[in-house]
Formats: sequence, C-alpha cells, structure tokens
Amino acid sequence: MRAIFRQELEQLGDHLIEMSRLVASAVDAAAKSLKTADLGLAEKVVDDDEKINELERTVDDLCISLLARQQPVATDLRIVVTGLMMSTTLERMGDLARHVAYVARGRYPRTACSDELARLVNKMGDQASTMAKLVMTLMESRDLAEAARIESEDDRLDSLHREVFTRVLNPEYEMERQELIDAILLARFLERFGDHCVSLARRTSFLVTGDLSNSVALPLEEDASDPHAR
Amino acid sequence: MRAIFRQELEQLGDHLIEMSRLVASAVDAAAKSLKTADLGLAEKVVDDDEKINELERTVDDLCISLLARQQPVATDLRIVVTGLMMSTTLERMGDLARHVAYVARGRYPRTACSDELARLVNKMGDQASTMAKLVMTLMESRDLAEAARIESEDDRLDSLHREVFTRVLNPEYEMERQELIDAILLARFLERFGDHCVSLARRTSFLVTGDLSNSVALPLEEDASDPHAR
Repeated sequence: MRAIFRQELEQLGDHLIEMSRLVASAVDAAAKSLKTADLGLAEKVVDDDEKINELERTVDDLCISLLARQQPVATDLRIVVTGLMMSTTLERMGDLARHVAYVARGRYPRTACSDELARLVNKMGDQASTMAKLVMTLMESRDLAEAARIESEDDRLDSLHREVFTRVLNPEYEMERQELIDAILLARFLERFGDHCVSLARRTSFLVTGDLSNSVALPLEEDASDPHAR
Repeated sequence: MRAIFRQELEQLGDHLIEMSRLVASAVDAAAKSLKTADLGLAEKVVDDDEKINELERTVDDLCISLLARQQPVATDLRIVVTGLMMSTTLERMGDLARHVAYVARGRYPRTACSDELARLVNKMGDQASTMAKLVMTLMESRDLAEAARIESEDDRLDSLHREVFTRVLNPEYEMERQELIDAILLARFLERFGDHCVSLARRTSFLVTGDLSNSVALPLEEDASDPHAR
C-alpha cells in the first residue's frame, strides 16, 4: 500500500513538472509570437492550452483520489494539498500565456505594439519566459536558491510593468488607442504571470522547509506591483 | 468524533458564507467609491481586505486540519476540497475589489472616468456587486436557481465589458490617456470578478449535485468574455 502511495506521490510531482514545462513553453511561444507577429505560433499557444487544462484535471483527480484512498497526514498531506493549489496556479498561467497569444493573433499581420513600447512589452515577455523556465528548474531540483532567484526576477518584471505605464502616460509619445490598450493588457497579463511564478516558488519552498512565514508579509497571490496601489 | 466532524464541516460552511459576505460588501463599497469619488470608502475597502485574507487562512487551516484528523471520504472529502478552492477564489475577489478601490483612491478628488465611460464602468461595478450578493445568497441557500442566475448575470457583465472596449476604441470619443487606462483596467478587474462568481456558482452546484459536467465546456476560471479572444 505505502509503495503504491510513494509511487503516486512521485507521479503527482512528475505531472506538476510536466505542467510547468508546458506553461514555460507556452509563454515563451506567446512572447515570440508577439515579437514577430507569428500567427501560426500564436494559434499553437491557443490550441496547446487545452493540454495544460487536461493535465490540471488529471492532477486534481489524482490528488482527490490520493486523499480518499491513502488518507495522508503530515508532510504527505502537505504535498497533496500543495499539489492541488499548484495545478490551479499553473492552469491560470497557461490562460495568461493564451491571452498574450490572442493579442498577437488579433493584430496579425502587424505587431501589437511598435517602437519603444514594443521593446518594453517584449522585454516583459522575455522576462516572463525566463521566470517560467526557472520555475520548471525549481520544481525539478527543489533547489531553494532558484526560488530566491524567481523572487528577484519578479522585481525586474514589476519594474518593466511600471515603465510601460510611465511610457503610455507620456503625452509626447504618440500611439493609437488600440496600441495603448494592448500594451496595458499585455503588461497586466505578464505581470500576473510573474506573480504566479512567485506563488509557485513560495509553495515549493514551503514543501521543502515547511515554513510559509515569508508569505505572511505578502500574500501568495498579491499584485505587489500594481501601479494603482501606490 | 463524527459529531465534531459535522460541526466542523458546518463551521467551514459558515466561514465561506462570511467570506462571501465580506467580498460582497467590499465590491459594493469599491463600486460606490468609484462612482462618488469617496476617498474614505475606498480606504476602507483597502483596509478591510486584510479581514478576507485572514479568513482565507482560517478556512485553509480548518480544511487541512479536517483532512488530517477526520480523513473524510466521498461527499465529505468533496466538501473539504471544494472549500479550499472556494476560499482561494473568494480571497482573489477581495483583491479585485481592492484594485477597484485603488483606482478610486488614486483619482480622488476626481472620479476615474467621466461621462459615458463613467456610466458604463459604474454599471459594471453595480453588476459585479449584484452578482456578489447572489453568490452570498446561493452559498446560504444552496438553491441552484441562484446559480443559474449568476451565469446569466455574468453574460450581462461581459456585454458591458465589450461596450467599454467599443467606447474607448471610438476615435470620436475624446478622453485622457489616464482615463482610458483606468477604464480598461477597471473593466478587466470587474469582468474577472464576475468570472470568479461563476466559478463559485459552479462549485456550489457541484457540491449539491455532484455533477461538474457543465464546467467541461467552459473551464471554471475561463475569461470567456475576453474581447481579445474573438
């Protein structure tokens, strides 16, 4: 019985790693489709999101079945409950990558933003992609140095987010309304994506150390970078 | 043992109802602060969000403790796991109400939007508030007619969301960039708030009927109304 349980816990971990791999690949492709106005790539992100959704259902079913059959306690219970939370977060990250791809698709054959604004938004896309890859590595390695790095990379993403606001509020910088709307929403999607990376980093740290204390100061799903909060 | 268990399940239900009450009150106050440029009310929404976050932690602790001590199966397990998911959703709705309040606070002593755009955004705020009250009623009554009504009210919110986009993309309609940015973000926050109401309605239906089938066509956290998706 216990051997099967260990095997299933391992399977849960593998599914979550696979989800993080699909999410990293989705946001990377979405960022690229945005940068190069690549319609095929944007369509692929939209289509492939179903795989992430499916994997979320698989993870949730596995977790609930584990709770019902194995009635885990202590660390094992923590792993299963955290697994449920993580699959929800990863599924949402897939949605956000898909939203980015929608914008790329909607503006084809043009790019959504141009010039300086495109440079900023594309930097945010690259940064989100970098963070998603770090999450994938962290989930494989459980190396907490990676978790710390994800937090500091998110500071950089937040700072780019603020730069987008500064740029679009500069009246000397001319742009069409559609471009302004796209920039604001893309920045929002990518900034939220980064928040979810931080949430995953903290949950992984929690699994490794059992310590959730650093989430007391800042709730896991907080939009710390919201320019409106200032 | 079982009597304590039943009591704790009831307590879980009461906590979730209390969270939904706080969230309904938060979004209602946020919408009002936006409409009337009421700084004190906006500040109150921001401050009170901590109560919602605290209640989320209480619910999560209770659920995990229930899983560890009572090892529920079948329907009871479903109630506890769904409780965990619902508390996360309600906490996020509190954040979204807080974001709306941030915008009201940031533009004081003016209102964020003016004229026709203000009328639309305020309608969205009222609609979100209506939906949050329906969620509260549903969580108390478990009456599935309320769940169906929440879904149809969300269609109305989504249609207002699209109207905001149409309005701001109309070149004849003059507005400042800050106003445009605020309108787009407010519309996004409120539309997401509505999605979360639908998610809660479906999870409650699931608890009552055991049937999650209507969430297969549309994932629980889907942004069905995203104008970019079209």
